[in-house]
Amino acid sequence: METLSTEKSFDGVQGVYRHAASQTACDMTFAVYMPPQAEAGPVPVLWYLSGLTCTHANVMEKGEYRRVAAELGLAIIAPDTSPRGAEVPDEPDNWQFGSGAGFYVDASEAPYETHYRMYSYIRDELPALVGDAFNLDMSRQGIFGHSMGGHGALVMALRNPDRFRSASAFAPIVNPSTADLSSSAFTRYLGSDQAAWRAYDAVSLVEDGHSFPEILIDQGDADSFLKLGLRPWLLETAVAGTKTELTLRMQPGYGHSYYFISSFMEDHLRWHAARL
Amino acid sequence: METLSTEKSFDGVQGVYRHAASQTACDMTFAVYMPPQAEAGPVPVLWYLSGLTCTHANVMEKGEYRRVAAELGLAIIAPDTSPRGAEVPDEPDNWQFGSGAGFYVDASEAPYETHYRMYSYIRDELPALVGDAFNLDMSRQGIFGHSMGGHGALVMALRNPDRFRSASAFAPIVNPSTADLSSSAFTRYLGSDQAAWRAYDAVSLVEDGHSFPEILIDQGDADSFLKLGLRPWLLETAVAGTKTELTLRMQPGYGHSYYFISSFMEDHLRWHAARL
Repeated sequence: METLSTEKSFDGVQGVYRHAASQTACDMTFAVYMPPQAEAGPVPVLWYLSGLTCTHANVMEKGEYRRVAAELGLAIIAPDTSPRGAEVPDEPDNWQFGSGAGFYVDASEAPYETHYRMYSYIRDELPALVGDAFNLDMSRQGIFGHSMGGHGALVMALRNPDRFRSASAFAPIVNPSTADLSSSAFTRYLGSDQAAWRAYDAVSLVEDGHSFPEILIDQGDADSFLKLGLRPWLLETAVAGTKTELTLRMQPGYGHSYYFISSFMEDHLRWHAARL
Repeated sequence: METLSTEKSFDGVQGVYRHAASQTACDMTFAVYMPPQAEAGPVPVLWYLSGLTCTHANVMEKGEYRRVAAELGLAIIAPDTSPRGAEVPDEPDNWQFGSGAGFYVDASEAPYETHYRMYSYIRDELPALVGDAFNLDMSRQGIFGHSMGGHGALVMALRNPDRFRSASAFAPIVNPSTADLSSSAFTRYLGSDQAAWRAYDAVSLVEDGHSFPEILIDQGDADSFLKLGLRPWLLETAVAGTKTELTLRMQPGYGHSYYFISSFMEDHLRWHAARL
Protein backbone atom coordinates (compact mmCIF):
# COMPACT_ATOMS: atom_id res chain seq x y z
CA MET A 1 0.00 0.00 0.00
CA GLU A 2 1.34 3.37 -1.06
CA THR A 3 0.48 6.67 0.63
CA LEU A 4 -0.42 9.28 -1.99
CA SER A 5 -1.17 12.14 0.42
CA THR A 6 -2.00 12.93 4.02
CA GLU A 7 -3.43 16.20 5.38
CA LYS A 8 -4.30 17.13 8.91
CA SER A 9 -7.95 18.12 9.16
CA PHE A 10 -10.16 18.62 12.20
CA ASP A 11 -7.35 17.20 14.36
CA GLY A 12 -7.39 13.92 12.41
CA VAL A 13 -5.69 12.81 9.21
CA GLN A 14 -7.26 12.65 5.76
CA GLY A 15 -5.19 10.27 3.66
CA VAL A 16 -5.30 8.90 0.12
CA TYR A 17 -3.75 5.49 -0.60
CA ARG A 18 -3.20 3.14 -3.53
CA HIS A 19 -2.65 -0.59 -3.71
CA ALA A 20 -2.50 -3.37 -6.25
CA ALA A 21 -5.86 -5.09 -5.82
CA SER A 22 -6.24 -8.74 -6.71
CA GLN A 23 -10.07 -8.80 -6.98
CA THR A 24 -10.13 -6.04 -9.57
CA ALA A 25 -6.72 -6.92 -11.05
CA CYS A 26 -5.62 -3.29 -11.13
CA ASP A 27 -4.33 -0.52 -8.88
CA MET A 28 -7.08 0.89 -6.67
CA THR A 29 -7.10 4.26 -4.89
CA PHE A 30 -9.08 4.94 -1.72
CA ALA A 31 -9.41 7.61 0.98
CA VAL A 32 -9.30 7.10 4.76
CA TYR A 33 -10.07 9.71 7.38
CA MET A 34 -8.67 8.74 10.77
CA PRO A 35 -10.13 10.72 13.68
CA PRO A 36 -7.87 11.90 16.51
CA GLN A 37 -9.25 9.17 18.80
CA ALA A 38 -7.33 6.59 16.74
CA GLU A 39 -4.13 7.70 18.43
CA ALA A 40 -5.48 6.24 21.67
CA GLY A 41 -7.03 3.04 20.36
CA PRO A 42 -8.93 1.32 17.55
CA VAL A 43 -11.92 3.23 16.20
CA PRO A 44 -15.08 2.01 14.47
CA VAL A 45 -15.26 2.10 10.68
CA LEU A 46 -17.85 3.69 8.44
CA TRP A 47 -17.70 2.81 4.75
CA TYR A 48 -18.95 5.38 2.24
CA LEU A 49 -19.73 4.13 -1.28
CA SER A 50 -19.91 6.84 -3.94
CA GLY A 51 -22.18 7.35 -6.91
CA LEU A 52 -21.83 7.22 -10.69
CA THR A 53 -18.86 9.14 -12.16
CA CYS A 54 -17.28 9.58 -8.72
CA THR A 55 -13.92 8.47 -7.35
CA HIS A 56 -12.79 8.39 -3.72
CA ALA A 57 -12.28 12.15 -3.98
CA ASN A 58 -15.81 13.50 -4.33
CA VAL A 59 -17.00 12.78 -0.82
CA MET A 60 -13.55 13.53 0.56
CA GLU A 61 -13.69 17.04 -0.87
CA LYS A 62 -17.40 17.85 -0.68
CA GLY A 63 -18.96 15.51 1.89
CA GLU A 64 -18.19 17.61 4.99
CA TYR A 65 -17.84 14.54 7.20
CA ARG A 66 -14.59 15.26 9.02
CA ARG A 67 -15.88 17.60 11.72
CA VAL A 68 -18.45 15.14 13.06
CA ALA A 69 -16.28 12.06 12.43
CA ALA A 70 -13.59 13.71 14.55
CA GLU A 71 -16.12 14.44 17.27
CA LEU A 72 -17.56 10.92 17.27
CA GLY A 73 -14.32 9.05 16.70
CA LEU A 74 -15.29 7.40 13.42
CA ALA A 75 -12.92 6.35 10.66
CA ILE A 76 -14.43 7.09 7.23
CA ILE A 77 -13.29 4.98 4.28
CA ALA A 78 -14.17 6.00 0.72
CA PRO A 79 -13.28 3.44 -1.96
CA ASP A 80 -13.30 4.10 -5.67
CA THR A 81 -16.40 3.20 -7.70
CA SER A 82 -14.85 0.85 -10.26
CA PRO A 83 -11.61 -0.67 -11.47
CA ARG A 84 -9.55 1.74 -13.56
CA GLY A 85 -6.56 1.63 -15.85
CA ALA A 86 -5.42 0.99 -19.40
CA GLU A 87 -6.03 -2.74 -18.99
CA VAL A 88 -9.65 -2.34 -17.78
CA PRO A 89 -12.43 -2.53 -20.41
CA ASP A 90 -14.24 0.80 -20.45
CA GLU A 91 -16.50 3.09 -22.43
CA PRO A 92 -15.19 6.58 -21.67
CA ASP A 93 -18.24 8.34 -23.11
CA ASN A 94 -20.75 6.26 -21.12
CA TRP A 95 -21.18 7.60 -17.57
CA GLN A 96 -23.49 4.73 -16.60
CA PHE A 97 -21.10 1.87 -17.42
CA GLY A 98 -17.45 1.01 -17.01
CA SER A 99 -15.08 3.35 -15.18
CA GLY A 100 -16.88 5.19 -12.41
CA ALA A 101 -19.85 2.84 -12.75
CA GLY A 102 -18.93 -0.50 -11.20
CA PHE A 103 -22.31 -0.80 -9.45
CA TYR A 104 -20.66 -2.82 -6.66
CA VAL A 105 -21.27 -6.15 -8.43
CA ASP A 106 -19.01 -9.08 -9.28
CA ALA A 107 -19.44 -9.24 -13.05
CA SER A 108 -20.00 -12.61 -14.62
CA GLU A 109 -19.86 -11.61 -18.26
CA ALA A 110 -16.85 -11.24 -20.58
CA PRO A 111 -14.90 -9.04 -20.91
CA TYR A 112 -15.87 -7.51 -17.56
CA GLU A 113 -15.58 -10.48 -15.21
CA THR A 114 -11.82 -10.11 -14.67
CA HIS A 115 -11.78 -6.55 -13.33
CA TYR A 116 -15.33 -5.58 -12.40
CA ARG A 117 -15.45 -7.36 -9.03
CA MET A 118 -16.31 -4.41 -6.80
CA TYR A 119 -18.57 -6.44 -4.51
CA SER A 120 -15.79 -8.78 -3.40
CA TYR A 121 -13.27 -5.95 -3.42
CA ILE A 122 -15.37 -3.88 -1.01
CA ARG A 123 -16.57 -6.77 1.10
CA ASP A 124 -13.35 -8.76 1.48
CA GLU A 125 -10.16 -7.37 0.02
CA LEU A 126 -10.21 -3.74 1.10
CA PRO A 127 -11.36 -4.49 4.68
CA ALA A 128 -8.50 -6.96 5.09
CA LEU A 129 -6.03 -4.36 3.86
CA VAL A 130 -7.21 -1.44 5.99
CA GLY A 131 -7.76 -3.65 9.02
CA ASP A 132 -4.03 -4.37 8.94
CA ALA A 133 -2.85 -0.89 8.02
CA PHE A 134 -4.93 1.37 10.30
CA ASN A 135 -5.96 1.40 13.93
CA LEU A 136 -9.52 0.17 13.27
CA ASP A 137 -11.98 -1.87 15.30
CA MET A 138 -13.23 -4.16 12.54
CA SER A 139 -15.89 -5.60 14.85
CA ARG A 140 -17.68 -2.24 14.59
CA GLN A 141 -18.46 -1.45 10.95
CA GLY A 142 -21.23 0.55 9.31
CA ILE A 143 -21.89 1.39 5.68
CA PHE A 144 -23.56 4.16 3.74
CA GLY A 145 -23.44 5.72 0.31
CA HIS A 146 -24.99 7.92 -2.33
CA SER A 147 -27.04 7.02 -5.40
CA MET A 148 -25.22 4.05 -7.03
CA GLY A 149 -23.27 3.91 -3.77
CA GLY A 150 -26.49 3.97 -1.78
CA HIS A 151 -27.48 0.90 -3.80
CA GLY A 152 -24.12 -0.63 -2.95
CA ALA A 153 -24.48 0.11 0.75
CA LEU A 154 -27.99 -1.34 0.95
CA VAL A 155 -26.95 -4.51 -0.89
CA MET A 156 -23.82 -4.91 1.23
CA ALA A 157 -25.84 -4.49 4.45
CA LEU A 158 -28.72 -6.76 3.44
CA ARG A 159 -26.35 -9.54 2.35
CA ASN A 160 -23.96 -9.15 5.29
CA PRO A 161 -26.04 -8.22 8.32
CA ASP A 162 -23.52 -9.84 10.68
CA ARG A 163 -20.71 -7.70 9.30
CA PHE A 164 -22.39 -4.31 9.48
CA ARG A 165 -24.05 -2.84 12.53
CA SER A 166 -25.55 0.16 10.72
CA ALA A 167 -26.65 1.17 7.22
CA SER A 168 -27.95 4.34 5.59
CA ALA A 169 -28.11 6.00 2.19
CA PHE A 170 -28.50 9.30 0.43
CA ALA A 171 -30.77 9.06 -2.62
CA PRO A 172 -30.05 5.36 -3.30
CA ILE A 173 -30.99 3.35 -6.37
CA VAL A 174 -33.14 0.87 -4.44
CA ASN A 175 -34.23 -1.28 -7.38
CA PRO A 176 -31.42 -1.13 -9.94
CA SER A 177 -32.86 -4.04 -11.94
CA THR A 178 -35.61 -1.77 -13.21
CA ALA A 179 -34.02 1.69 -12.96
CA ASP A 180 -32.99 3.61 -16.03
CA LEU A 181 -29.67 4.44 -14.36
CA SER A 182 -28.60 0.83 -14.00
CA SER A 183 -30.54 -1.84 -15.88
CA SER A 184 -28.35 -1.64 -18.97
CA ALA A 185 -25.19 -1.99 -16.87
CA PHE A 186 -26.69 -4.96 -15.02
CA THR A 187 -27.33 -6.71 -18.33
CA ARG A 188 -23.78 -6.23 -19.45
CA TYR A 189 -22.08 -7.07 -16.13
CA LEU A 190 -24.40 -9.89 -15.03
CA GLY A 191 -25.97 -11.25 -18.20
CA SER A 192 -29.53 -11.29 -19.41
CA ASP A 193 -30.83 -13.83 -16.86
CA GLN A 194 -32.37 -11.48 -14.34
CA ALA A 195 -32.36 -14.14 -11.62
CA ALA A 196 -28.67 -13.34 -11.15
CA TRP A 197 -29.47 -9.66 -10.67
CA ARG A 198 -31.46 -10.24 -7.49
CA ALA A 199 -28.35 -10.59 -5.32
CA TYR A 200 -27.45 -7.02 -6.26
CA ASP A 201 -30.84 -5.34 -5.86
CA ALA A 202 -32.07 -4.12 -2.46
CA VAL A 203 -35.77 -4.53 -3.28
CA SER A 204 -35.20 -8.05 -4.64
CA LEU A 205 -33.09 -9.01 -1.63
CA VAL A 206 -35.86 -7.93 0.74
CA GLU A 207 -38.39 -9.82 -1.37
CA ASP A 208 -36.13 -12.87 -1.15
CA GLY A 209 -36.05 -12.75 2.66
CA HIS A 210 -32.97 -10.69 3.47
CA SER A 211 -33.30 -8.11 6.20
CA PHE A 212 -31.38 -5.47 8.11
CA PRO A 213 -32.63 -4.12 11.44
CA GLU A 214 -32.75 -0.39 10.68
CA ILE A 215 -32.05 1.62 7.54
CA LEU A 216 -32.06 5.43 7.20
CA ILE A 217 -32.60 7.01 3.78
CA ASP A 218 -32.62 10.72 2.98
CA GLN A 219 -33.98 11.70 -0.43
CA GLY A 220 -34.37 15.17 -1.92
CA ASP A 221 -37.72 15.73 -3.56
CA ALA A 222 -36.15 18.03 -6.19
CA ASP A 223 -33.76 15.26 -7.26
CA SER A 224 -33.94 14.92 -11.05
CA PHE A 225 -33.26 11.16 -10.84
CA LEU A 226 -36.02 10.51 -8.34
CA LYS A 227 -38.80 9.08 -10.50
CA LEU A 228 -36.92 7.01 -13.07
CA GLY A 229 -33.78 6.07 -11.19
CA LEU A 230 -34.12 6.15 -7.42
CA ARG A 231 -37.74 5.56 -6.36
CA PRO A 232 -37.20 4.89 -2.64
CA TRP A 233 -40.89 4.14 -2.25
CA LEU A 234 -40.23 0.76 -3.88
CA LEU A 235 -38.07 -0.20 -0.91
CA GLU A 236 -40.65 1.22 1.49
CA THR A 237 -43.23 -1.10 -0.06
CA ALA A 238 -40.87 -4.07 -0.05
CA VAL A 239 -39.96 -3.82 3.65
CA ALA A 240 -43.55 -3.38 4.86
CA GLY A 241 -44.29 -6.24 7.27
CA THR A 242 -40.67 -7.49 7.28
CA LYS A 243 -37.99 -7.34 9.95
CA THR A 244 -36.36 -4.35 8.23
CA GLU A 245 -37.33 -1.00 9.67
CA LEU A 246 -36.87 1.75 7.09
CA THR A 247 -36.79 5.44 7.98
CA LEU A 248 -37.33 7.29 4.69
CA ARG A 249 -37.12 11.07 4.91
CA MET A 250 -38.17 13.09 1.87
CA GLN A 251 -36.27 16.39 2.06
CA PRO A 252 -38.17 19.24 0.39
CA GLY A 253 -36.29 21.27 -2.21
CA TYR A 254 -33.07 19.24 -2.15
CA GLY A 255 -31.39 17.84 -5.27
CA HIS A 256 -28.96 14.99 -5.95
CA SER A 257 -25.61 16.71 -5.37
CA TYR A 258 -23.17 17.04 -2.50
CA TYR A 259 -25.00 20.24 -1.52
CA PHE A 260 -27.75 17.84 -0.45
CA ILE A 261 -25.48 15.14 0.97
CA SER A 262 -23.43 17.54 3.09
CA SER A 263 -26.63 19.02 4.53
CA PHE A 264 -27.56 15.67 6.08
CA MET A 265 -24.11 14.14 6.59
CA GLU A 266 -24.12 14.97 10.29
CA ASP A 267 -27.44 13.20 10.82
CA HIS A 268 -26.10 10.07 9.15
CA LEU A 269 -22.85 10.03 11.10
CA ARG A 270 -24.77 10.34 14.36
CA TRP A 271 -27.17 7.58 13.23
CA HIS A 272 -24.23 5.26 12.61
CA ALA A 273 -22.31 6.21 15.75
CA ALA A 274 -25.35 5.42 17.89
CA ARG A 275 -25.43 1.91 16.41
CA LEU A 276 -21.69 1.20 16.29
CA MET B 1 -26.83 39.05 -14.10
CA GLU B 2 -27.37 35.47 -15.17
CA THR B 3 -28.05 32.57 -12.79
CA LEU B 4 -25.82 29.61 -13.67
CA SER B 5 -27.03 27.27 -10.91
CA THR B 6 -28.84 27.16 -7.59
CA GLU B 7 -28.85 24.29 -5.10
CA LYS B 8 -30.60 24.03 -1.76
CA SER B 9 -28.08 23.36 0.99
CA PHE B 10 -28.46 23.54 4.78
CA ASP B 11 -31.89 25.13 4.24
CA GLY B 12 -30.38 28.02 2.28
CA VAL B 13 -29.47 28.44 -1.39
CA GLN B 14 -26.00 28.09 -2.90
CA GLY B 15 -26.03 29.94 -6.21
CA VAL B 16 -23.54 30.67 -8.97
CA TYR B 17 -23.99 33.78 -11.11
CA ARG B 18 -22.32 35.55 -14.04
CA HIS B 19 -22.37 39.16 -15.15
CA ALA B 20 -20.63 41.46 -17.62
CA ALA B 21 -18.27 43.44 -15.38
CA SER B 22 -17.14 46.90 -16.42
CA GLN B 23 -14.11 47.15 -14.12
CA THR B 24 -12.54 43.99 -15.49
CA ALA B 25 -14.05 44.38 -18.97
CA CYS B 26 -15.08 40.73 -19.12
CA ASP B 27 -17.70 38.32 -17.83
CA MET B 28 -17.18 37.49 -14.17
CA THR B 29 -18.58 34.49 -12.27
CA PHE B 30 -19.22 34.50 -8.52
CA ALA B 31 -20.93 32.37 -5.86
CA VAL B 32 -23.45 33.51 -3.25
CA TYR B 33 -24.78 31.45 -0.37
CA MET B 34 -27.98 32.91 1.02
CA PRO B 35 -28.93 31.55 4.45
CA PRO B 36 -32.56 30.73 5.25
CA GLN B 37 -32.86 33.91 7.36
CA ALA B 38 -32.77 35.97 4.13
CA GLU B 39 -36.37 34.95 3.48
CA ALA B 40 -37.39 37.03 6.48
CA GLY B 41 -35.16 40.07 5.97
CA PRO B 42 -31.77 41.39 4.88
CA VAL B 43 -28.76 39.46 6.18
CA PRO B 44 -25.16 40.59 6.78
CA VAL B 45 -22.55 39.84 4.14
CA LEU B 46 -19.24 38.06 4.48
CA TRP B 47 -16.86 38.27 1.51
CA TYR B 48 -14.44 35.41 0.95
CA LEU B 49 -11.46 36.07 -1.33
CA SER B 50 -9.75 32.96 -2.68
CA GLY B 51 -6.12 32.11 -3.29
CA LEU B 52 -3.90 31.55 -6.31
CA THR B 53 -5.27 29.22 -9.02
CA CYS B 54 -8.76 29.27 -7.45
CA THR B 55 -12.11 30.36 -8.85
CA HIS B 56 -15.34 31.01 -6.95
CA ALA B 57 -15.79 27.23 -6.82
CA ASN B 58 -13.00 26.07 -4.51
CA VAL B 59 -14.37 27.47 -1.29
CA MET B 60 -17.91 26.76 -2.42
CA GLU B 61 -17.10 23.06 -2.77
CA LYS B 62 -14.50 22.54 -0.06
CA GLY B 63 -14.86 25.38 2.46
CA GLU B 64 -17.61 23.80 4.59
CA TYR B 65 -19.13 27.18 5.44
CA ARG B 66 -22.82 26.59 4.77
CA ARG B 67 -23.79 24.83 8.00
CA VAL B 68 -22.58 27.65 10.24
CA ALA B 69 -23.57 30.42 7.82
CA ALA B 70 -27.11 29.00 7.90
CA GLU B 71 -27.06 28.91 11.69
CA LEU B 72 -25.73 32.46 12.01
CA GLY B 73 -27.67 34.00 9.14
CA LEU B 74 -24.67 35.11 7.09
CA ALA B 75 -24.56 35.51 3.32
CA ILE B 76 -21.22 34.28 1.94
CA ILE B 77 -20.00 35.76 -1.34
CA ALA B 78 -17.06 34.20 -3.19
CA PRO B 79 -15.81 36.21 -6.19
CA ASP B 80 -13.39 34.91 -8.80
CA THR B 81 -9.67 35.65 -8.38
CA SER B 82 -9.00 37.42 -11.69
CA PRO B 83 -10.53 38.49 -14.97
CA ARG B 84 -10.85 35.63 -17.45
CA GLY B 85 -11.58 35.15 -21.13
CA ALA B 86 -10.04 35.10 -24.57
CA GLU B 87 -9.62 38.87 -24.52
CA VAL B 88 -7.74 38.92 -21.19
CA PRO B 89 -3.90 38.85 -21.30
CA ASP B 90 -2.73 35.69 -19.57
CA GLU B 91 0.12 33.24 -19.13
CA PRO B 92 -1.60 29.86 -18.84
CA ASP B 93 1.53 28.08 -17.59
CA ASN B 94 2.22 30.63 -14.84
CA TRP B 95 0.15 29.95 -11.72
CA GLN B 96 1.41 33.10 -9.97
CA PHE B 97 0.36 35.59 -12.63
CA GLY B 98 -2.60 36.27 -14.91
CA SER B 99 -5.75 34.14 -14.72
CA GLY B 100 -6.32 32.92 -11.18
CA ALA B 101 -3.73 35.37 -9.86
CA GLY B 102 -5.21 38.86 -9.92
CA PHE B 103 -3.82 39.69 -6.46
CA TYR B 104 -6.77 42.04 -5.86
CA VAL B 105 -4.92 45.04 -7.33
CA ASP B 106 -5.87 47.63 -9.94
CA ALA B 107 -3.05 47.17 -12.45
CA SER B 108 -1.36 50.27 -13.82
CA GLU B 109 0.87 48.63 -16.41
CA ALA B 110 0.11 47.67 -20.02
CA PRO B 111 -1.28 45.33 -21.16
CA TYR B 112 -2.88 44.45 -17.81
CA GLU B 113 -4.45 47.76 -16.79
CA THR B 114 -7.63 47.24 -18.81
CA HIS B 115 -8.79 43.96 -17.24
CA TYR B 116 -6.80 43.40 -14.04
CA ARG B 117 -8.81 45.73 -11.81
CA MET B 118 -9.83 43.30 -9.10
CA TYR B 119 -9.50 45.83 -6.27
CA SER B 120 -12.17 48.12 -7.71
CA TYR B 121 -14.23 45.18 -8.90
CA ILE B 122 -14.38 43.68 -5.39
CA ARG B 123 -14.66 46.99 -3.55
CA ASP B 124 -17.20 48.79 -5.73
CA GLU B 125 -18.73 46.96 -8.65
CA LEU B 126 -19.66 43.59 -7.20
CA PRO B 127 -21.09 45.01 -3.94
CA ALA B 128 -23.35 47.33 -5.96
CA LEU B 129 -24.56 44.40 -8.04
CA VAL B 130 -25.26 41.97 -5.19
CA GLY B 131 -26.72 44.72 -3.00
CA ASP B 132 -29.41 45.16 -5.64
CA ALA B 133 -29.92 41.51 -6.49
CA PHE B 134 -30.00 39.81 -3.06
CA ASN B 135 -31.61 40.48 0.29
CA LEU B 136 -28.43 41.82 1.93
CA ASP B 137 -27.79 44.34 4.69
CA MET B 138 -24.88 46.19 3.09
CA SER B 139 -24.32 48.17 6.28
CA ARG B 140 -23.01 44.94 7.85
CA GLN B 141 -20.09 43.59 5.83
CA GLY B 142 -17.06 41.54 6.81
CA ILE B 143 -14.24 40.12 4.71
CA PHE B 144 -11.89 37.16 4.86
CA GLY B 145 -9.83 35.03 2.55
CA HIS B 146 -7.06 32.50 2.02
CA SER B 147 -3.44 32.99 0.96
CA MET B 148 -3.55 35.50 -1.94
CA GLY B 149 -7.15 36.10 -0.87
CA GLY B 150 -6.04 36.60 2.72
CA HIS B 151 -3.79 39.33 1.38
CA GLY B 152 -6.76 40.77 -0.49
CA ALA B 153 -8.97 40.69 2.59
CA LEU B 154 -6.36 42.39 4.80
CA VAL B 155 -5.73 45.12 2.22
CA MET B 156 -9.43 45.67 1.66
CA ALA B 157 -10.08 45.94 5.42
CA LEU B 158 -7.10 48.19 6.17
CA ARG B 159 -7.99 50.57 3.33
CA ASN B 160 -11.74 50.54 3.98
CA PRO B 161 -12.23 50.27 7.74
CA ASP B 162 -15.56 52.10 7.51
CA ARG B 163 -16.90 49.59 5.01
CA PHE B 164 -15.98 46.40 6.84
CA ARG B 165 -16.84 45.59 10.43
CA SER B 166 -14.72 42.44 10.61
CA ALA B 167 -11.67 40.90 8.94
CA SER B 168 -9.82 37.60 9.15
CA ALA B 169 -7.60 35.38 7.05
CA PHE B 170 -6.33 31.85 6.60
CA ALA B 171 -2.60 31.73 5.80
CA PRO B 172 -2.47 35.19 4.19
CA ILE B 173 0.40 36.71 2.22
CA VAL B 174 0.89 39.62 4.62
CA ASN B 175 3.80 41.30 2.82
CA PRO B 176 3.37 40.53 -0.89
CA SER B 177 5.94 43.13 -1.89
CA THR B 178 8.71 40.86 -0.64
CA ALA B 179 7.11 37.40 -0.91
CA ASP B 180 8.23 34.91 -3.51
CA LEU B 181 4.58 34.17 -4.31
CA SER B 182 3.78 37.71 -5.37
CA SER B 183 6.66 40.14 -5.94
CA SER B 184 7.05 39.25 -9.61
CA ALA B 185 3.32 39.76 -10.21
CA PHE B 186 3.41 43.11 -8.37
CA THR B 187 6.20 44.30 -10.69
CA ARG B 188 4.23 43.40 -13.77
CA TYR B 189 0.82 44.67 -12.58
CA LEU B 190 2.02 47.79 -10.75
CA GLY B 191 5.39 48.71 -12.27
CA SER B 192 8.85 48.75 -10.82
CA ASP B 193 8.32 51.78 -8.54
CA GLN B 194 7.64 50.00 -5.27
CA ALA B 195 6.02 53.10 -3.74
CA ALA B 196 2.91 52.13 -5.68
CA TRP B 197 2.93 48.66 -4.17
CA ARG B 198 2.39 49.91 -0.64
CA ALA B 199 -1.35 50.43 -1.15
CA TYR B 200 -1.64 46.68 -1.82
CA ASP B 201 0.51 45.33 0.99
CA ALA B 202 -0.87 44.80 4.51
CA VAL B 203 2.45 45.30 6.27
CA SER B 204 3.17 48.50 4.29
CA LEU B 205 -0.34 49.82 4.94
CA VAL B 206 0.11 49.34 8.69
CA GLU B 207 3.53 51.00 8.49
CA ASP B 208 1.87 53.89 6.63
CA GLY B 209 -0.68 54.43 9.39
CA HIS B 210 -3.67 52.35 8.32
CA SER B 211 -5.38 50.29 10.96
CA PHE B 212 -8.26 47.91 11.57
CA PRO B 213 -9.60 47.23 15.06
CA GLU B 214 -9.27 43.43 15.20
CA ILE B 215 -7.84 40.87 12.80
CA LEU B 216 -7.87 37.08 13.22
CA ILE B 217 -5.32 34.97 11.35
CA ASP B 218 -5.02 31.18 11.41
CA GLN B 219 -1.81 29.73 9.99
CA GLY B 220 -0.76 26.08 9.75
CA ASP B 221 2.80 25.47 10.84
CA ALA B 222 3.19 22.66 8.29
CA ASP B 223 2.27 25.03 5.44
CA SER B 224 4.92 24.72 2.72
CA PHE B 225 4.53 28.40 1.77
CA LEU B 226 5.01 29.66 5.32
CA LYS B 227 8.60 30.88 5.31
CA LEU B 228 9.03 32.35 1.84
CA GLY B 229 5.50 33.40 0.98
CA LEU B 230 3.26 33.98 3.99
CA ARG B 231 5.33 35.00 7.06
CA PRO B 232 2.50 36.24 9.30
CA TRP B 233 5.07 37.30 11.90
CA LEU B 234 5.86 40.30 9.68
CA LEU B 235 2.35 41.61 10.28
CA GLU B 236 2.61 40.80 13.98
CA THR B 237 5.73 42.98 14.13
CA ALA B 238 4.15 45.75 12.09
CA VAL B 239 1.01 46.07 14.24
CA ALA B 240 2.88 46.10 17.56
CA GLY B 241 2.03 49.35 19.31
CA THR B 242 -0.60 50.36 16.72
CA LYS B 243 -4.38 50.51 16.95
CA THR B 244 -4.67 47.16 15.12
CA GLU B 245 -5.12 44.18 17.39
CA LEU B 246 -3.94 40.99 15.67
CA THR B 247 -4.83 37.50 16.90
CA LEU B 248 -2.39 35.15 15.17
CA ARG B 249 -2.93 31.47 15.84
CA MET B 250 -0.28 29.03 14.66
CA GLN B 251 -2.03 25.70 14.13
CA PRO B 252 0.29 22.75 14.64
CA GLY B 253 0.46 20.17 11.85
CA TYR B 254 -1.86 21.95 9.43
CA GLY B 255 -1.00 22.68 5.79
CA HIS B 256 -2.17 25.20 3.20
CA SER B 257 -5.18 23.39 1.70
CA TYR B 258 -8.92 23.39 2.28
CA TYR B 259 -8.41 20.54 4.75
CA PHE B 260 -6.88 23.27 6.94
CA ILE B 261 -9.34 26.02 6.01
CA SER B 262 -12.43 23.89 6.63
CA SER B 263 -11.08 22.90 10.05
CA PHE B 264 -11.18 26.51 11.22
CA MET B 265 -13.99 27.88 9.06
CA GLU B 266 -16.48 27.70 11.91
CA ASP B 267 -14.22 29.77 14.18
CA HIS B 268 -13.92 32.47 11.53
CA LEU B 269 -17.64 32.62 10.83
CA ARG B 270 -18.38 33.01 14.53
CA TRP B 271 -15.66 35.68 14.81
CA HIS B 272 -17.29 37.67 12.02
CA ALA B 273 -20.86 37.16 13.21
CA ALA B 274 -19.94 38.50 16.66
CA ARG B 275 -18.67 41.70 15.00
CA LEU B 276 -21.35 42.12 12.33
